[in-house]
Amino acid sequence: MLVNGELRTSIWTDDDHQVWIIDQRWLPHEVVFTELTSLDDFYNSIKDMWVRGAPLIGVTAAFGIAKYMEINNSDNGISQAYAQLMKARPTAVNLRTGLDFICTRLKECREGDRVRVGFEAAVEFRLIEIGISEAIGRNGAQMIGAMYREKKRPINILTHCNAGWLATVDWGTATAPMYWAAQSDIPIHVYVDETRPRNQGAQSTAWELGQNNISHELIVDNAGGHLMQHGMVDMVIVGSDRTTASGDVCNKIGTYLKALAAKDNGVPFYVALPTTTIDWNIDDGIKQIEIENRSEDEIHFIQGLNANGKISSVRISPSSTRAINPAFDVTPSRLISKLITNKGVFSADSISLQKINSNLSEKM
Amino acid sequence: MLVNGELRTSIWTDDDHQVWIIDQRWLPHEVVFTELTSLDDFYNSIKDMWVRGAPLIGVTAAFGIAKYMEINNSDNGISQAYAQLMKARPTAVNLRTGLDFICTRLKECREGDRVRVGFEAAVEFRLIEIGISEAIGRNGAQMIGAMYREKKRPINILTHCNAGWLATVDWGTATAPMYWAAQSDIPIHVYVDETRPRNQGAQSTAWELGQNNISHELIVDNAGGHLMQHGMVDMVIVGSDRTTASGDVCNKIGTYLKALAAKDNGVPFYVALPTTTIDWNIDDGIKQIEIENRSEDEIHFIQGLNANGKISSVRISPSSTRAINPAFDVTPSRLISKLITNKGVFSADSISLQKINSNLSEKM
Repeated sequence: MLVNGELRTSIWTDDDHQVWIIDQRWLPHEVVFTELTSLDDFYNSIKDMWVRGAPLIGVTAAFGIAKYMEINNSDNGISQAYAQLMKARPTAVNLRTGLDFICTRLKECREGDRVRVGFEAAVEFRLIEIGISEAIGRNGAQMIGAMYREKKRPINILTHCNAGWLATVDWGTATAPMYWAAQSDIPIHVYVDETRPRNQGAQSTAWELGQNNISHELIVDNAGGHLMQHGMVDMVIVGSDRTTASGDVCNKIGTYLKALAAKDNGVPFYVALPTTTIDWNIDDGIKQIEIENRSEDEIHFIQGLNANGKISSVRISPSSTRAINPAFDVTPSRLISKLITNKGVFSADSISLQKINSNLSEKM
Repeated sequence: MLVNGELRTSIWTDDDHQVWIIDQRWLPHEVVFTELTSLDDFYNSIKDMWVRGAPLIGVTAAFGIAKYMEINNSDNGISQAYAQLMKARPTAVNLRTGLDFICTRLKECREGDRVRVGFEAAVEFRLIEIGISEAIGRNGAQMIGAMYREKKRPINILTHCNAGWLATVDWGTATAPMYWAAQSDIPIHVYVDETRPRNQGAQSTAWELGQNNISHELIVDNAGGHLMQHGMVDMVIVGSDRTTASGDVCNKIGTYLKALAAKDNGVPFYVALPTTTIDWNIDDGIKQIEIENRSEDEIHFIQGLNANGKISSVRISPSSTRAINPAFDVTPSRLISKLITNKGVFSADSISLQKINSNLSEKM
């Protein structure tokens, strides 16, 4: 996707096989490209959220363990790198997926080949992730296009958080259908939820869409219901961090409230997700998914650009007030119109999702 | 209510008949008491939100026109003050109510008596407002008490925005039942919605409750639905800026989303309001109430305390991103369990509300 008019991805390699990322801590105010070299670089970039978003974390970890082969290509080196990188975000499923993908290849080959094999595997893993996002975009854009042909005016889409290309390698998940639609000359307008407490909508999604010339407006998380009551939203598209076999979706806190409003106003509520987020072992998201409680300082302090053009934080609450900060909520499948996946579009129920394994998507 | 351990109200007079307010622009970081003297002082205090909340605005305007009689006690003086103060927040109904209350008294008496009569009328108007809040508190606390006797553990209440004593003169509207309950030894815990974009929950409600030793935790506006899904909320109490004859409630943006979540989880959703907010001429809030769109800068910029202990603002969004900022939304009566008013507790429907005029509240 475009950054300052040039095509970029969130992680890439140069001609010397060096790995570069966009250091997302300073967006939208500064665009910083950072080279990751040491194992500590990769570890810190994941742990301290220079990179964020499940798919991107997986790819970053994959390059991390691959590059460590230049330092120590023994079995012990593989184990060391694996252990350290896993510690960076212990609950991230994609982190393990990325590491396992590389490790399997490394263990199959001789020590002397591991620098080359590891790097090639990481490059391949990155391309797989891009392909998944592209497929989600293609499938979702068909739904936007169908609505456009019916309404014959720009389609208004509401999104929550950043399930954007910054959270993947390219395209994104929830944003992929938007970018694909725009490139197919289907006119859209996007309402971007600010997404407190970490403001990923205001900081990342609004920036992404602006850089790619997608018409959009920022709203507070409180406003979506009102917009839907007044016919200003044609569809909602959000991402998913974890999806149950029954179609419940665990996503950024506040997603559930938007799903309720969509249901109450007859607005289609779509979730865009790679099928890898489906956890086939659980079928009741509210009961079975434990929600991460993050630091209360994410609520008390807000980062932005101050009057002197410096990135700084302000505290918004009384110093003695405590906060609680659940990071995700679960949207029950009954509120979800369709799941847009890389393998096709499915209803949010067990029977439909079972088709994924037999590769049969529903007619749209 | 308590401020730094002393009983205070949001507006008061001293022994010399001077008018003082809490300048709310600096809460929760600084408590500033400001004397209002000139007509411009009163005008600016309303316009620039040194005072906020419909009841408090009305009382401030009442004192504004009364005090102006010391400068110009002619009929012309009354008209001048009325016109200027009305301009401060043109859409605020209580502003007109307060001014009309004083004007009626002033016009009935000789010029020479107007300083005394105007001041006495403003003092009376302030006490009427306190009485209304007290009655809401008493009526609402009975409902909390009933639930406490049933559950035999602290009652968890979620509130949105600041319908607190800072928005009235004392007690508040949504907070009045909480303070009354606490003073009646009914244990409660309050989840305080941050309330973007102006953060009245984080800045005012959390501060109020903390000063009055009410157990509370701050949450982002996105979190309420998740808390309700997990049984952490026993009831919601919010305020109302305008109520239709059919029981629809226009309140701070985001209220509707919490009402949807309450309905979905079987949590009682109560609205605390003075009967003066009922507009008997409208019965479809979504169609008939025009929602104020406020400055987009309220979304882009957030005020707080910086690392140097200074109150300052940061911009959270890209400089090129536009925002839209509807300030209120409408919660349809079908989502509201009860209306807690100064005249009793009513179901949110036309037939029940008609009892207000005949002074018959429902059994609780």
